[in-house]
Amino acid sequence: MKKFNIELKIDEIVSQVKGEYISRFDTKLDSVSELEDANPKSVCFFENEAYVNQLKACKAGLIIVSPDFDNSLNEFSNLLKVEKPYFTFMVLVKLWLEMDKQTKENIISSKAMISPSASIGENVSIADFVVIEDNVKIGNDSKIEANCVIKEGSVVGNNCHLFPNCTIYDNMVLGNSVVLHAGVVIGADGFGYILYDGVQEKVPQIGNVIIKDNVEIGANTCIDRGTLGSTIIEKNTKLDNLVQIGHNVRIGENTIICSQVGIAGSTTVGDLVYLAGQVGVADHVKIGNRVMAGAKSGIHSTLKDGIMVLGYPARDVALQRRIMAAETKLPDIYKNYLKNKKKENKE
Amino acid sequence: MKKFNIELKIDEIVSQVKGEYISRFDTKLDSVSELEDANPKSVCFFENEAYVNQLKACKAGLIIVSPDFDNSLNEFSNLLKVEKPYFTFMVLVKLWLEMDKQTKENIISSKAMISPSASIGENVSIADFVVIEDNVKIGNDSKIEANCVIKEGSVVGNNCHLFPNCTIYDNMVLGNSVVLHAGVVIGADGFGYILYDGVQEKVPQIGNVIIKDNVEIGANTCIDRGTLGSTIIEKNTKLDNLVQIGHNVRIGENTIICSQVGIAGSTTVGDLVYLAGQVGVADHVKIGNRVMAGAKSGIHSTLKDGIMVLGYPARDVALQRRIMAAETKLPDIYKNYLKNKKKENKE
Amino acid sequence: MKKFNIELKIDEIVSQVKGEYISRFDTKLDSVSELEDANPKSVCFFENEAYVNQLKACKAGLIIVSPDFDNSLNEFSNLLKVEKPYFTFMVLVKLWLEMDKQTKENIISSKAMISPSASIGENVSIADFVVIEDNVKIGNDSKIEANCVIKEGSVVGNNCHLFPNCTIYDNMVLGNSVVLHAGVVIGADGFGYILYDGVQEKVPQIGNVIIKDNVEIGANTCIDRGTLGSTIIEKNTKLDNLVQIGHNVRIGENTIICSQVGIAGSTTVGDLVYLAGQVGVADHVKIGNRVMAGAKSGIHSTLKDGIMVLGYPARDVALQRRIMAAETKLPDIYKNYLKNKKKENKE
Repeated sequence: MKKFNIELKIDEIVSQVKGEYISRFDTKLDSVSELEDANPKSVCFFENEAYVNQLKACKAGLIIVSPDFDNSLNEFSNLLKVEKPYFTFMVLVKLWLEMDKQTKENIISSKAMISPSASIGENVSIADFVVIEDNVKIGNDSKIEANCVIKEGSVVGNNCHLFPNCTIYDNMVLGNSVVLHAGVVIGADGFGYILYDGVQEKVPQIGNVIIKDNVEIGANTCIDRGTLGSTIIEKNTKLDNLVQIGHNVRIGENTIICSQVGIAGSTTVGDLVYLAGQVGVADHVKIGNRVMAGAKSGIHSTLKDGIMVLGYPARDVALQRRIMAAETKLPDIYKNYLKNKKKENKE
Repeated sequence: MKKFNIELKIDEIVSQVKGEYISRFDTKLDSVSELEDANPKSVCFFENEAYVNQLKACKAGLIIVSPDFDNSLNEFSNLLKVEKPYFTFMVLVKLWLEMDKQTKENIISSKAMISPSASIGENVSIADFVVIEDNVKIGNDSKIEANCVIKEGSVVGNNCHLFPNCTIYDNMVLGNSVVLHAGVVIGADGFGYILYDGVQEKVPQIGNVIIKDNVEIGANTCIDRGTLGSTIIEKNTKLDNLVQIGHNVRIGENTIICSQVGIAGSTTVGDLVYLAGQVGVADHVKIGNRVMAGAKSGIHSTLKDGIMVLGYPARDVALQRRIMAAETKLPDIYKNYLKNKKKENKE
Repeated sequence: MKKFNIELKIDEIVSQVKGEYISRFDTKLDSVSELEDANPKSVCFFENEAYVNQLKACKAGLIIVSPDFDNSLNEFSNLLKVEKPYFTFMVLVKLWLEMDKQTKENIISSKAMISPSASIGENVSIADFVVIEDNVKIGNDSKIEANCVIKEGSVVGNNCHLFPNCTIYDNMVLGNSVVLHAGVVIGADGFGYILYDGVQEKVPQIGNVIIKDNVEIGANTCIDRGTLGSTIIEKNTKLDNLVQIGHNVRIGENTIICSQVGIAGSTTVGDLVYLAGQVGVADHVKIGNRVMAGAKSGIHSTLKDGIMVLGYPARDVALQRRIMAAETKLPDIYKNYLKNKKKENKE
């Protein structure tokens, strides 16, 4: 259950969306919840038949249902009938969150350390113990939470949100509406060493990271700076927690990178790609657009647009599934092979 | 070697446990150590015959040994004979650590930022540059180390210990005696997006995380908040470093989750489960009680109580081991298959 | 492109290295860049024929090329001909970075909290909101960035660099010229529990971590303290981001550990080893010198010096590649096996 600061009359909510409204009682609403946690001030949705028992007992203030919903299934709650109940619910939640946000003041804490040479936009919130170094630029409406560090010369766009304890190294560039969850590290040195006279010598890492608009990055994820050029995350792309992006990688637009994925240096990933959890991608590989890779796949070579892969090494998913099925018979196949060998040897 | 602030007379230690005490000299004790690092003020244990050479040379103040120990194997040290030397050693260490703790004052740093609306219990320690936001509640005897951030409305129980640089998002609930190691992130947004008109749209993540009593969580581990409901870690469960727990996951009691494991959204894990390092679990899967999964296993489907699995996809461990053994013969099997094919084609 | 604070005359740069200088115009230089981003004040290198088009159009102040370079390929830039263009470029970058560093003052921030019992060397820089607890020792010329926490009794050597938000637990030992990237955690408790009366009981973790000279550790990597003894990283070894090193592990010299590798407790890794991304190593394993393990390998048993492995379980790389090749034929082999079985059954 999520309780908002702002209460809304049920009419204020219902009027936001097109749909048929079945009114049972008047109420104010202050929260959204799952069916089983609802009270007469909360909004729920029902879309999945598996939850029909929770639905029947639910005494929510409003349940969002589909147009063909049988009203007799729940007699306690107000109902709102729309084409896509879950999607409508989501839209309402977003509106409500936005209204809630506006009730809070944006403050620049006197306990933050902001360089006099930094440029801070309007309506920016900077929390306690944030450090903003020389020549940093922060756009309008951005929110920097406690204990973040933004090193010199970096740029953060408008309407960004950095959760606590993030680190942005020097000379990084974040676009607008970028979200960094707690503990994210943008711009640590890429991992480059050359063995010289028996000693690992560091290759200087002096490029940067460029993150485009509407990118969201999960907690404790690391994106390394380019060796000389840039590591680039294109707009609308989403990275989950604990992801590793190596130096000089370029990730396209609207791509989904799940948790604990690792992408090695200089690899490029296309648009609308989906990499499931714990996938690994080798360095200098090209992954096309709309590629999908199953969990734990290990990608070592170029993948064309639209391909679906699985396994290690990553193979076409249909082939890999046949291989996985046949693997379970491999011990029998081996036994048979040995038997035949023996027979041959006797012959 | 661990040196304590508090020195203890050997009698004070020996009197803590049942066992036979063989006294060679009187001493005060101030440390615990491995056999090879010991000095006449340190306590050691001997249980593994592989370390008999270190034992013979050891000049510790006290060695904890088993009841059938041959006293002539070490003539320098006092001996304490008990049924389980290592376990007894561990108990003594815990007692000593507890005594040591009490010699330190608990202070609330004037350099921490604590909201006036936060409620702080008795005997709480809050270190420098900690940020505690509005309406947070912290129970008695808890310790919040430097640079942690606890966001609004979250609850931390009694006797908890947060190491430095942890982030707790808003509205989280931690029970009693919960330990978070450095860099842990509790409650970042779950990873949910819907592709809408060619753009990844965020599904609002407005649930929370509930962590029950005696849970310990390793460094830089991330536990995401529920989408609408809660992500739950039941009591006595232990998570290692760099683990990822997705939204709406529920993990049972006394379960062990090793480093770099990832568990995707809405999956449930039973009690007394053991997931070895780098295991991945898909979303919406049910893992029963006492399940054991070998390192790097990829679990995609429901596992019944007590099952042991290995591999990707995770299979019964006995079958998977037979597959792995047969795999080494696969190149030969393939050669043989080709030979037979050729022969058939000729026939 | 990396722009330096210090401008250098082209003669100052050219005089640093042996080589033939082809002068086209006089200029001052202020940056290094890739060929395509260069301007008349930047230094580039050309070594890879794949970039010949970028080379032709490049108007850099200086391009470092090989001795047999055809000068007509680029007519805009000054040229410097040396044996190893990339290596020479790297050396120049390092010199320049070093000069740049010296233009900055080292300051101990009044906003840092430094225990009176801590000992701080000469020419040390300590940034805002750093916490340095009792009896910590920091050597000369070290730089501790914002929001780092160094707990009591730990030692940091000379010329170390801790990026923001690192945590060093108590009683750790870092040598000279150690670099920790943002979010690194040194010395969290090892992961040890014993099931006792149905409850997971913690094994106290009271050892430490010892990191030798010239070790560099990537962002958000975790190195656990020893249970009783030490976890040790020997000199010149490099760890990438999000790596997990368990308690009592010992890693040799000049070893390369790529991102998301996990090494379980008490394992030893030799010198000059290379573990590629997402490799896992089981506990109590011995890995010899110069071992190489391919990405995602799972190492469960001792590996002799110089061995190359791949796969799970990790096998000799040549064998594993043959297995991987044969796997793609496994579905056919299985079909054939079934066909023969049927035939046999009929006979």
